[in-house]
Amino acid sequence: MRLSRLMGLMERDGIDAYIISQKSSIYYYVESTGGAFLLVNPDEPLLLTPKVDYTISLEQAKGCKVFPYTRDRVLEIIERELEKVNPKVVGFDDLPIEIYVGLKERFKEIEFRHTSGIIWEMRKIKDHREEELMRRAGELASIGMGAILENLREGVREFELAAEAAHSMMMGGAEGLAFPISIASGPRSAYPHAGVTDREIRRGDLVTVDLGATYKGYKSDITRTFIVGRATREQAEIYEAVLQAKEAAMKEIREGARGRDLDRIARDIISDRGYAEYFVHSLGHGVGLDIHEPPTLSETSEDALTRGNVVTCEPGIYIPGRGGVRIEDTVLLGGGGAERLTRFAERMGEICV
Amino acid sequence: MRLSRLMGLMERDGIDAYIISQKSSIYYYVESTGGAFLLVNPDEPLLLTPKVDYTISLEQAKGCKVFPYTRDRVLEIIERELEKVNPKVVGFDDLPIEIYVGLKERFKEIEFRHTSGIIWEMRKIKDHREEELMRRAGELASIGMGAILENLREGVREFELAAEAAHSMMMGGAEGLAFPISIASGPRSAYPHAGVTDREIRRGDLVTVDLGATYKGYKSDITRTFIVGRATREQAEIYEAVLQAKEAAMKEIREGARGRDLDRIARDIISDRGYAEYFVHSLGHGVGLDIHEPPTLSETSEDALTRGNVVTCEPGIYIPGRGGVRIEDTVLLGGGGAERLTRFAERMGEICV
Repeated sequence: MRLSRLMGLMERDGIDAYIISQKSSIYYYVESTGGAFLLVNPDEPLLLTPKVDYTISLEQAKGCKVFPYTRDRVLEIIERELEKVNPKVVGFDDLPIEIYVGLKERFKEIEFRHTSGIIWEMRKIKDHREEELMRRAGELASIGMGAILENLREGVREFELAAEAAHSMMMGGAEGLAFPISIASGPRSAYPHAGVTDREIRRGDLVTVDLGATYKGYKSDITRTFIVGRATREQAEIYEAVLQAKEAAMKEIREGARGRDLDRIARDIISDRGYAEYFVHSLGHGVGLDIHEPPTLSETSEDALTRGNVVTCEPGIYIPGRGGVRIEDTVLLGGGGAERLTRFAERMGEICV
Repeated sequence: MRLSRLMGLMERDGIDAYIISQKSSIYYYVESTGGAFLLVNPDEPLLLTPKVDYTISLEQAKGCKVFPYTRDRVLEIIERELEKVNPKVVGFDDLPIEIYVGLKERFKEIEFRHTSGIIWEMRKIKDHREEELMRRAGELASIGMGAILENLREGVREFELAAEAAHSMMMGGAEGLAFPISIASGPRSAYPHAGVTDREIRRGDLVTVDLGATYKGYKSDITRTFIVGRATREQAEIYEAVLQAKEAAMKEIREGARGRDLDRIARDIISDRGYAEYFVHSLGHGVGLDIHEPPTLSETSEDALTRGNVVTCEPGIYIPGRGGVRIEDTVLLGGGGAERLTRFAERMGEICV
């Protein structure tokens, strides 16, 4: 059904054939984890899969034929399939450069259009089943954050906290991590993307924890910042600015809200407190089978939210050499309005030491 | 020092400037996790980093200048840098298609050469410090496999096994998983890439577990297959064939050994037992900062092993609908010959139920 809707959108946009190579989009359209290229045309969609994944692709794939390829023959096979369809316009979401160049040379008369527009037009609107899976992914992320809070104390190391969070999410049914867990403690909290090190947590540290679960392919994303001991005046001030920016933006998540306007609401609050230069990223991004997908909440985004969108809301302040705070939730814009999928309390913590 | 060696190799191969965009290669050359494009020329290497990662890049990066960019200006900045150098040949390891097309249009007289050859010439030979890190990554993978064996019993679910393995590796100091853990139980063991589901382990199951740790950026890779209860004659036969294929190939891992010859040794043994069509992948791959890198051990590989190489050796037999077996170790070709970095016992287990 998704494939036939895609074909309808292809017709609307004058795309005669489509080469899909993003794993998550292949999974979305034919439910296979094994394929490498999904060739969509009105006659018969074809999933090209490396030989090693032929068995799993054959068993999983719905609505398409499955064909195993060896790497040295993939260009030739795609060419052969395109010849059958004789298209004027071929869309593709992404391609290895050699294959792109090879196709351009072989088919000089075809327009190759690099676009994922119609794919995202579909994927960014979650259906009922997807909403259920994303709710569970969100719950698992909250469970992971709970494990962090339980284990956070002076002397514990960043990687030990990550271990406990991973364990609790996966024991809860996550098949994996949505992305590598980030535990940014002390001065490292000034890094938005910090990873995990063997640093020991110390009294007075800000600890920014960013994690998410994957549940049946769907991802979640949550960030909380804790303080170990009592917050200094600056730490408390930054925390309050970020929290208020987040709450103000969250309130405006509704149908029709534009990405740039939501970003502006959060950015204005942070600017008013004097931290404009330290909010060094966008307010949020879509989440689904990918951890970063449309729609985007950023200073330049013209995306307008619609029902079924799932986005993060995650303002942050990062002061080099001193530390930082980010607070993030994953939010579903459902039938009843904005629904927080990651519901861990937004308390700074003041962890006892 | 790595950067200056790279510049020497660029000169040897007539490459005037190099655009490096693989994260792992950027880390290898300038020790930064944050950059997106490393522009190498004899005057002054430049790391382009998104604004969000500017602080961490500035603190980490060694031997290069750091410059923050916004996405809409990245092509323009690369063009400006290339104009300064006025190169005849520009190498690149990979590029987004738009940037590749943009550069080709802007600089019609420049040859853009898509090659990672000289990067891998360096990266595939691990130095002493890298060997130490890979040893630790290997130990952590063995610890993860130990957690699997401790928890494997009838009734446990695949995701619970994965949770325990992740926990033990990360508590041991891994900053993350080298790749998503794969637990292929029962008929799912016929999938080389199986992922993790909520399937319950049952008596008589083959359980193929593939996992690895990341330690200070470096990866490890191990696979073991267990039998829950007593093996059937066919299960035991497949297991023995794979084990003997692996042992025979491992013995020949030495300086000068060719990838295709090692693959042939393992493939011949499996073929002799009548399972040729079920060994559906290559014998092995290099491991380092990436989980798949050169050199390659495959039917067509001309790679000849040299000291400092780290490769996997992982024959497998997969019978659709019935099940499969894979046994894999990560091996360092060090000064004293082949050294197994993943040293978990290769026993089928016969797990009590």
